[in-house]
Amino acid sequence: MSIAVLLGSTRPGGNTEQLVDQVIEGISHSKFVLHEKKIQTIIDQRHLPEGFQPVEDEYDELIQRVLEHDILIFATPVYWYGVSSPLKTFIDRWSQSLRSTDYNFKELISQKKAYIVVVGGDDPHIKALPLIQQLKYTFDFVGLPLEGYIIGKGSKPGDILADSRALLNAKWLNDRLKEQQA
Amino acid sequence: MSIAVLLGSTRPGGNTEQLVDQVIEGISHSKFVLHEKKIQTIIDQRHLPEGFQPVEDEYDELIQRVLEHDILIFATPVYWYGVSSPLKTFIDRWSQSLRSTDYNFKELISQKKAYIVVVGGDDPHIKALPLIQQLKYTFDFVGLPLEGYIIGKGSKPGDILADSRALLNAKWLNDRLKEQQA
Amino acid sequence: MSIAVLLGSTRPGGNTEQLVDQVIEGISHSKFVLHEKKIQTIIDQRHLPEGFQPVEDEYDELIQRVLEHDILIFATPVYWYGVSSPLKTFIDRWSQSLRSTDYNFKELISQKKAYIVVVGGDDPHIKALPLIQQLKYTFDFVGLPLEGYIIGKGSKPGDILADSRALLNAKWLNDRLKEQQA
Amino acid sequence: MSIAVLLGSTRPGGNTEQLVDQVIEGISHSKFVLHEKKIQTIIDQRHLPEGFQPVEDEYDELIQRVLEHDILIFATPVYWYGVSSPLKTFIDRWSQSLRSTDYNFKELISQKKAYIVVVGGDDPHIKALPLIQQLKYTFDFVGLPLEGYIIGKGSKPGDILADSRALLNAKWLNDRLKEQQA
Repeated sequence: MSIAVLLGSTRPGGNTEQLVDQVIEGISHSKFVLHEKKIQTIIDQRHLPEGFQPVEDEYDELIQRVLEHDILIFATPVYWYGVSSPLKTFIDRWSQSLRSTDYNFKELISQKKAYIVVVGGDDPHIKALPLIQQLKYTFDFVGLPLEGYIIGKGSKPGDILADSRALLNAKWLNDRLKEQQA
Repeated sequence: MSIAVLLGSTRPGGNTEQLVDQVIEGISHSKFVLHEKKIQTIIDQRHLPEGFQPVEDEYDELIQRVLEHDILIFATPVYWYGVSSPLKTFIDRWSQSLRSTDYNFKELISQKKAYIVVVGGDDPHIKALPLIQQLKYTFDFVGLPLEGYIIGKGSKPGDILADSRALLNAKWLNDRLKEQQA
Repeated sequence: MSIAVLLGSTRPGGNTEQLVDQVIEGISHSKFVLHEKKIQTIIDQRHLPEGFQPVEDEYDELIQRVLEHDILIFATPVYWYGVSSPLKTFIDRWSQSLRSTDYNFKELISQKKAYIVVVGGDDPHIKALPLIQQLKYTFDFVGLPLEGYIIGKGSKPGDILADSRALLNAKWLNDRLKEQQA
Repeated sequence: MSIAVLLGSTRPGGNTEQLVDQVIEGISHSKFVLHEKKIQTIIDQRHLPEGFQPVEDEYDELIQRVLEHDILIFATPVYWYGVSSPLKTFIDRWSQSLRSTDYNFKELISQKKAYIVVVGGDDPHIKALPLIQQLKYTFDFVGLPLEGYIIGKGSKPGDILADSRALLNAKWLNDRLKEQQA
């Protein structure tokens, strides 16, 4: 059982990364920092006779590496009540993956399990719920089971370390992942 | 009363553009096609001593032109149950505008009115609701009143023209905007 | 094609009833005013050896009459951001119907089509969305397709007649229902 | 600091009651079992010249006793993706309390703090979110701060005892309430 963290943060060592680091503490994993990757915005070419055209960026290599893992942890700060733009840009490109002939995206991703870790500053237990619902619909579309989510509260660097409930839930998930990896 | 359309589509003349074109039919307006603009992803520098650093792209010019209008119509296809990545990338940069000393972003934008026009292919009257809720929270944060939204259904090019209810609501909004502009 | 209106209002001729009356204007239908019926609150007896016990009220007769129709229009004022208690009490009793041996509730109701008509006073286009999502989950559970919903704004008696957009959408649905009944 | 549990369950000792009992374990509290009280459905008389008329049931006494507490824990099973009908019927009557001249409902309730404890059988971490949003809007309306919520999963009697994460969060809240009461 291998774990991929898809990190949507743009500030290294920020609250979201700190929280997800608790989730994967002591567990081997791959961490993909999305904003460090060159990922172009999707151009909707679904309806062109020739379909999607190859894009010169790092998306294809990235998604194929991500798909080598069994558990996908989507970790993102709440940016304007949604996932961060690096994560949104990444997910939007799934439309292209769905039509790729190099691999069967839906078949591959539906065999994995997903978790969500989000940290927001403005009442995230309420105002991040649309974000959770949105990702749930996204995962449903590709058949990826959402196994759980953790919502933390933080704005200034280090805030998350004062969110005892988020830390507790991160520890709970850490234990569960360790059991699965044992 | 001047109108700005912020178009999140990446396919020219697509369903979303067709629907918003009905909304502004016969009304002078500015249309900003976001994916044609060079807009960098936000890098969260809120907590650096020096704050946000200037970014070499077209965002600053764009937001200042947008803010010259009284009514802002956010028109986006539903991409993975959220706004399109070009629109999300644009909105995420508001964090930078909030801290700009060149203009008072919150004061300026709170004097405007917003509408949302979205088109989605997968049960959008239900599955685009988190998108609406997300933008509502976003507008609330900056004090921008959301005056209404229109949800249309479409996937293949031209589908929207068969959504009689969406067209009816577009016409209703068109009439209302014309009254305001008169 | 026969139509049942399930009216959750407790004020005769109120905004919700006025709006749904526009939807069914000129169309034969049955209107069930839920608060006029004696409907007991569900007692969860799912896990008793003997299961649900007969209840002396008007629910059974009511649900059987409702199930004789092809189209079910759930019309409710927004009470505290949810459906009214008469409608909630009625729906909660579906748990009992699901286990009835007198009729196959799920098979029967899944052959029908549902619409929702709601009127609220406090920003209903945003704050009634959880109500819509809740009913959608409810209908999904029993296999009842949700064909559409109309949200109106009103608080004081007659307010709804000033909501031109709600009236327009009611007229649109009225036309559509007339076509289906023709 | 005194605690009131408003229990919406209709099955004694069910999953919801078991979970909320963990939350208040070792803490003095009052538990109000709503379905055991005689509470009439609201009749909307807001717009009558004479306003709401007295109702012969146990609501008035109940709400006044509830309002003697500092912390209100709303504990409800998820019935059809909403709060149970006994809880909805109770909350709907707040419209009457808002207009009571016997006490200042809004002033009193806004000085308290609320928690929500819900247990559902069908993917409650997703499908109970509209319920949470609805109660949040409700509490916002009367100025009652929502301090947190716990979602548990359970259907058959005793299921909740296998939801280790819900139990963990109940323990966390129990500790926090004990601190406040110390």
